[in-house]
Amino acid sequence: MSTIRPRLTPAMADVRRAVREMLADIFPDARESSEESAHSLPAAQDFAPVGAPLLLVALSGGADSLALASALAFEAPRAGLRAGAVIVNHNLQAGSAAVADRAAEQAHSLGLDPVLIRTVEVLPASGPEADARSARYAALAAARDDSGAAAVLLGHTLDDQAETVLLGLTRGAGPTSLAGMSPVSGFYLRPLLGIRRSATESACADQGLEPWNDPHNVDPTYTRVRIRHTVMPVLEKELGPGIAEALVRTAEHLREDAATLDSLANDLMQGLIMPGAGPEVALDANALADAPRAIYTRVIRAVALAAFGVSLTSAHTAAISLLVTNWHGQGAAHVPGIRVERQGFRLVFVPTESE
Amino acid sequence: MSTIRPRLTPAMADVRRAVREMLADIFPDARESSEESAHSLPAAQDFAPVGAPLLLVALSGGADSLALASALAFEAPRAGLRAGAVIVNHNLQAGSAAVADRAAEQAHSLGLDPVLIRTVEVLPASGPEADARSARYAALAAARDDSGAAAVLLGHTLDDQAETVLLGLTRGAGPTSLAGMSPVSGFYLRPLLGIRRSATESACADQGLEPWNDPHNVDPTYTRVRIRHTVMPVLEKELGPGIAEALVRTAEHLREDAATLDSLANDLMQGLIMPGAGPEVALDANALADAPRAIYTRVIRAVALAAFGVSLTSAHTAAISLLVTNWHGQGAAHVPGIRVERQGFRLVFVPTESE
Repeated sequence: MSTIRPRLTPAMADVRRAVREMLADIFPDARESSEESAHSLPAAQDFAPVGAPLLLVALSGGADSLALASALAFEAPRAGLRAGAVIVNHNLQAGSAAVADRAAEQAHSLGLDPVLIRTVEVLPASGPEADARSARYAALAAARDDSGAAAVLLGHTLDDQAETVLLGLTRGAGPTSLAGMSPVSGFYLRPLLGIRRSATESACADQGLEPWNDPHNVDPTYTRVRIRHTVMPVLEKELGPGIAEALVRTAEHLREDAATLDSLANDLMQGLIMPGAGPEVALDANALADAPRAIYTRVIRAVALAAFGVSLTSAHTAAISLLVTNWHGQGAAHVPGIRVERQGFRLVFVPTESE
Repeated sequence: MSTIRPRLTPAMADVRRAVREMLADIFPDARESSEESAHSLPAAQDFAPVGAPLLLVALSGGADSLALASALAFEAPRAGLRAGAVIVNHNLQAGSAAVADRAAEQAHSLGLDPVLIRTVEVLPASGPEADARSARYAALAAARDDSGAAAVLLGHTLDDQAETVLLGLTRGAGPTSLAGMSPVSGFYLRPLLGIRRSATESACADQGLEPWNDPHNVDPTYTRVRIRHTVMPVLEKELGPGIAEALVRTAEHLREDAATLDSLANDLMQGLIMPGAGPEVALDANALADAPRAIYTRVIRAVALAAFGVSLTSAHTAAISLLVTNWHGQGAAHVPGIRVERQGFRLVFVPTESE
């Protein structure tokens, strides 16, 4: 199939470069094996050999994911990779099936193959944004499993990252949430975290792609929408136009710091877990107390998460920490799903019945 | 001297408690030695024994430092400590000497002794805010030296801390500046970092103290003023009223993290410095490369600061890091005052002539 290619504009080039660099980073070998078998292919190599790794772009039809889909369709075969799309129909708005169909048409016309549509049921649990996200990621993971894709590419931009950092900051939730989204997280890849949202909009316009404008994106009942449309513009006006980039730079630093401390905490945890009976987990409290606070609080959170699936708040972690650093015979700390108590020099985590 | 005491209001109690807790933390022994010699003192002990440690409150006359001065005058003698004040006249505004005199009168009437006024000359160097700050801290340090004070108390509140975090965040300057002000930093103490500015204003009003309103505090040419009067109110309105507290909680986490990583980096640095000739500093580049990025970048910054007095930017640190992690025979990295180059497996910092 031969299509007339639009002139390459700076925005298109930026998006493509971001995709190209990430593909080269993550799949350094695909290109080579593709080049080996390229002798039998036309010079303008627009498709990868059968059996090449498949990448799926998560396509909402919005400017971010549409620009990503287009860039992926261009770059993947050149990197010896196949590119498809997965479209999640959240089924929350009237006409959402039509939106999904239109995105699928766009994906087809970009040459993506396969193009999968997944319709999900969003179950009310933790609020509309979180529920939709859970359903979306479950659908993406299932699409990846079913298609055997090597990775799923997400269209999050620098602006999304800045908003995430600000959101984490305003929740006071500690360095981890502040660190923002990772470019590589399991099989999810976010190649556009260094690209402004405006560049994805330009890239779409430049090649005649019409993005879908999700009405949720301007609904001020969502915190993220207020951050996007009210908070960030005020920050840019009052503190300078480089604010989004500064937030993202900060997030990078914090991600490095958090990764290092998490790794040190994990090493320490492995050494401190004491043999015990049943579902309890016991740690050597004295050895814990010898570690810096930044480390032992992470060990406490890691034990709660790994052994009991409980994500501790700062307040819960602080309550448990008192059993380590300020032990004077007080009673147990009760957190959801776990009772933590001292037994001599042991700090013991005991599962409790969930109500 | 006997004065009629105002009724103790919640705001006054909060400010006093914050001061009392910090004094108990920092000077745990003063109280005891004071109690030993207290037999000869009146029951309502309003002055500490001669020879007790002296604390100075840095008093601008604004609500924060005035409320702090009042609380310190009340709490210090009860903790076995003496309390005085130091007032810095920046000499930048018409009538600044009169403002200083009025603050000195207030300090005297609160029973503080000694009350020192320091007039400084603010030399233009790095911008009006930074220059005034440098001159102020130099004057405070000199006042402490001259008076033999054990500590200087600063009136920074929770709001100041939140503004500092936001300022650091928007500069993208990395975890260190994001971590905000420390409650204890050398001989400076900041007992009010957990107290809202509004509480210091109430505390002043409750006891009939009239604070001075610095016109600089409403001058929107200052970034901090725009953060205070425009950015923070928008954040509170759009994201919820707990935003200042959330920022401060985040800063606490980050301060812990940064302290732990700085300490690990310092330990590593001590082990990596190699014997060299003259003013050069050489590190074992291979051992550096084995450390996580969060650690080796801190080692690089620490060497530049400790050995050459140079505070590296993120970009400079990244340029030097390439000599560690991506060494392929490239030339030296040039940063202000230092040339950093590879000599075999050594990473060598060489001082350069300053232009």
